Amino acid sequence: MSTPPQADWAPPQLRKQRCELSRLIEPGDLLGPTAVAALGVARTHELIFSGRRPTSDEQQAVAAAALEAGLNTSRLTLAGGLERWRTRAEQANGERDLRVLHRLGGGLIVPEDDAWPAQLNDLYPATPLGLYFRGPAVTADADPQQNYQLALQRLPAPPRSIAVVGSREMTDYGGRAAFELAEQLAGHGVSILSGGAYGIDAAAHRGALHAEHDERGASPTCAVLAGGVDRFYPAGNERLLRAVTERGLLLSEMAPGSTPTRHRFLHRNRIIAALAAAVVVIEARWRSGALSTAHHGLGLGRAVGAFPGSVYSSSSSGCHRLLRDTPAELVTDAAEVLEMIVAGPGAEQPALQIPSTEPVTTPDRAADHLNDLDQRLYDALPAQRSTTAGKLCGVAGLPMPQVLAGMSRLERRGLASVADGRWRRER
Amino acid sequence: MSTPPQADWAPPQLRKQRCELSRLIEPGDLLGPTAVAALGVARTHELIFSGRRPTSDEQQAVAAAALEAGLNTSRLTLAGGLERWRTRAEQANGERDLRVLHRLGGGLIVPEDDAWPAQLNDLYPATPLGLYFRGPAVTADADPQQNYQLALQRLPAPPRSIAVVGSREMTDYGGRAAFELAEQLAGHGVSILSGGAYGIDAAAHRGALHAEHDERGASPTCAVLAGGVDRFYPAGNERLLRAVTERGLLLSEMAPGSTPTRHRFLHRNRIIAALAAAVVVIEARWRSGALSTAHHGLGLGRAVGAFPGSVYSSSSSGCHRLLRDTPAELVTDAAEVLEMIVAGPGAEQPALQIPSTEPVTTPDRAADHLNDLDQRLYDALPAQRSTTAGKLCGVAGLPMPQVLAGMSRLERRGLASVADGRWRRER
Repeated sequence: MSTPPQADWAPPQLRKQRCELSRLIEPGDLLGPTAVAALGVARTHELIFSGRRPTSDEQQAVAAAALEAGLNTSRLTLAGGLERWRTRAEQANGERDLRVLHRLGGGLIVPEDDAWPAQLNDLYPATPLGLYFRGPAVTADADPQQNYQLALQRLPAPPRSIAVVGSREMTDYGGRAAFELAEQLAGHGVSILSGGAYGIDAAAHRGALHAEHDERGASPTCAVLAGGVDRFYPAGNERLLRAVTERGLLLSEMAPGSTPTRHRFLHRNRIIAALAAAVVVIEARWRSGALSTAHHGLGLGRAVGAFPGSVYSSSSSGCHRLLRDTPAELVTDAAEVLEMIVAGPGAEQPALQIPSTEPVTTPDRAADHLNDLDQRLYDALPAQRSTTAGKLCGVAGLPMPQVLAGMSRLERRGLASVADGRWRRER
Repeated sequence: MSTPPQADWAPPQLRKQRCELSRLIEPGDLLGPTAVAALGVARTHELIFSGRRPTSDEQQAVAAAALEAGLNTSRLTLAGGLERWRTRAEQANGERDLRVLHRLGGGLIVPEDDAWPAQLNDLYPATPLGLYFRGPAVTADADPQQNYQLALQRLPAPPRSIAVVGSREMTDYGGRAAFELAEQLAGHGVSILSGGAYGIDAAAHRGALHAEHDERGASPTCAVLAGGVDRFYPAGNERLLRAVTERGLLLSEMAPGSTPTRHRFLHRNRIIAALAAAVVVIEARWRSGALSTAHHGLGLGRAVGAFPGSVYSSSSSGCHRLLRDTPAELVTDAAEVLEMIVAGPGAEQPALQIPSTEPVTTPDRAADHLNDLDQRLYDALPAQRSTTAGKLCGVAGLPMPQVLAGMSRLERRGLASVADGRWRRER
């Protein structure tokens, strides 16, 4: 690839170490990122793999960082963490993992890369240890650097990244809403983030891929998976997820080969929320993972919106719950979703705008904007017959000068006509 | 009727005078109620019908009251008002009007009656001059006092009065929602107020009449009309409106014989809002009279709610607009509507309560409420095979003591079983 790299990349050794740490430390094990923040990547890595006891300086540094991060330090000790992390030490092989990933068109972005999505740092101490990605498959002899260059271009960057999420059990209504919203947003250069699941997630990815994507955006869509990016999960979405790798990226904090477990799904949702400038829930049941993504978004200060639906649809009950119980905003189309971001505090970049969908209304009637007095006069005109100004005084309850002045205003607006001294309603 | 009257009633002369004033002064002509407040009913009446010029004391009193009410006093002078009101002086005949009404089972409630709904005074200076009502038709020789006694019992009294309003152009969804909401609320002793129109209004009245009405309430439903209560308007709702007179009341500020004009519809909406403890919009187009009722409600400090609907339904676009642009609350059932009132500042009376509709959810799974660590362990158990605690350490990334303690917790919850030292997932 001839484009000169414009970004700084972390040294290979550090990438390999983060890869191995991500194999050992489960999402939700907050002492992991805290130890890395306190001791650095290399020291934490060495400490785990050497099997040595932590020095009291190391213990104190991690305890202090944990305290500052608000963790329960009486339960989370470095010794306990090391014990947990070492249980998987044999499985860690950063060189192998990265080799596999590079061949699949992927890699691992780390916080030390310029390409690292800085918005993920809002999650601290739940910041992922790295972000695995997968783009289009490359030929065997391709330079892995090409993968990284592509990821740099395709990673979601706020404010041009919006999460569109929802239930697996979607209705036709929700599917249409997700598809059309994603299509319209992607058509304006927004990258659509979702979870790659059946239902609303899939409809959102499809809508984004269907859009004529505005090239200002990073990529039409990215799927954040709960397992490794080497496997297309769920299997029924394989074709869709493959299409996402072709024009966007699969993303995950999990090392390749990791299975998507329930525990990992729940933690995955925080990454979707953190990567997005806004989270939009299209359909969600009363209890739904999509609501957890929305709550993560609210906690991170992201704009959060939800689509309304029928009060009889259990697939909308979670959206309604969100709208009643949280500051989430009711949104009904792409323009309103973009308004949330433009109005939001993080809106530093040039405003994204979509002209608001013209509401379906009856056309303006000429009698729509009359003042109270003219409306009274217009109402006083008989529907069929003509009448005199004198009669209008009594019917409208107005004196002659006001009747004559008002009738002449109505005449100018084409709402009344006069002939032989008798007034008649027009239209 | 043997029940002794428990309320004081205004003297007949005053009722007749207010009746005549209401014939002369159009709704929206705010100088009318202001003059009555400043000069009293009898003096205002005498001033109009005598044809004399107002004294400077009278002019000053009305000007001061108008100023205090925030009216544009340079445009609204007592002389101008008298000129308007006198145009209809010949039409005024309080004795005739009241005689007609009494025969129809109706009458005129005035602010000087104990039965006057005091919540209408919140409208000042747009307070109606009186409130015409119509209940069940009486026999020719019946005592009109019976009508008044009935009105006293049936008039809406907050917090047990809720307006359910919406578009004429309703969908099946809106019709069902309005009917069911009104039915449930009326079943809990709430009186449903609406406008007697086609569409949502009619569905709400019907739902209320269909309920097994809890007798704590005044009447299941009242219809506030834009024309006189002597005519059933719109004609297509005659049977429905007749049914409302049988078990509830027709209400209007307009003297009998008055036609329901556009101008009067718009002013009528303020009365619906004022009489209600809460206003609920079921379906409304982008521009809809129901929205004006909701805005009146917000201005009066009433609780205001709106039902959500499909983003593709133009009949819900006004509801969504209301929910986005105003403090109106999203509500989806009768329980949530009642919550608005109970939570509201005017909630002095014993709380109204309906158990919230059980949300449609999948039943709790035993694995739903595991802590993070136990969830990791449960996720680590293979779906089919059994496994050893040693293997679980590596898969879950946890040391042996935590694995054993966690597996024993899962076993107690029936989520795992052990045989010959091998663990197996249950359920």
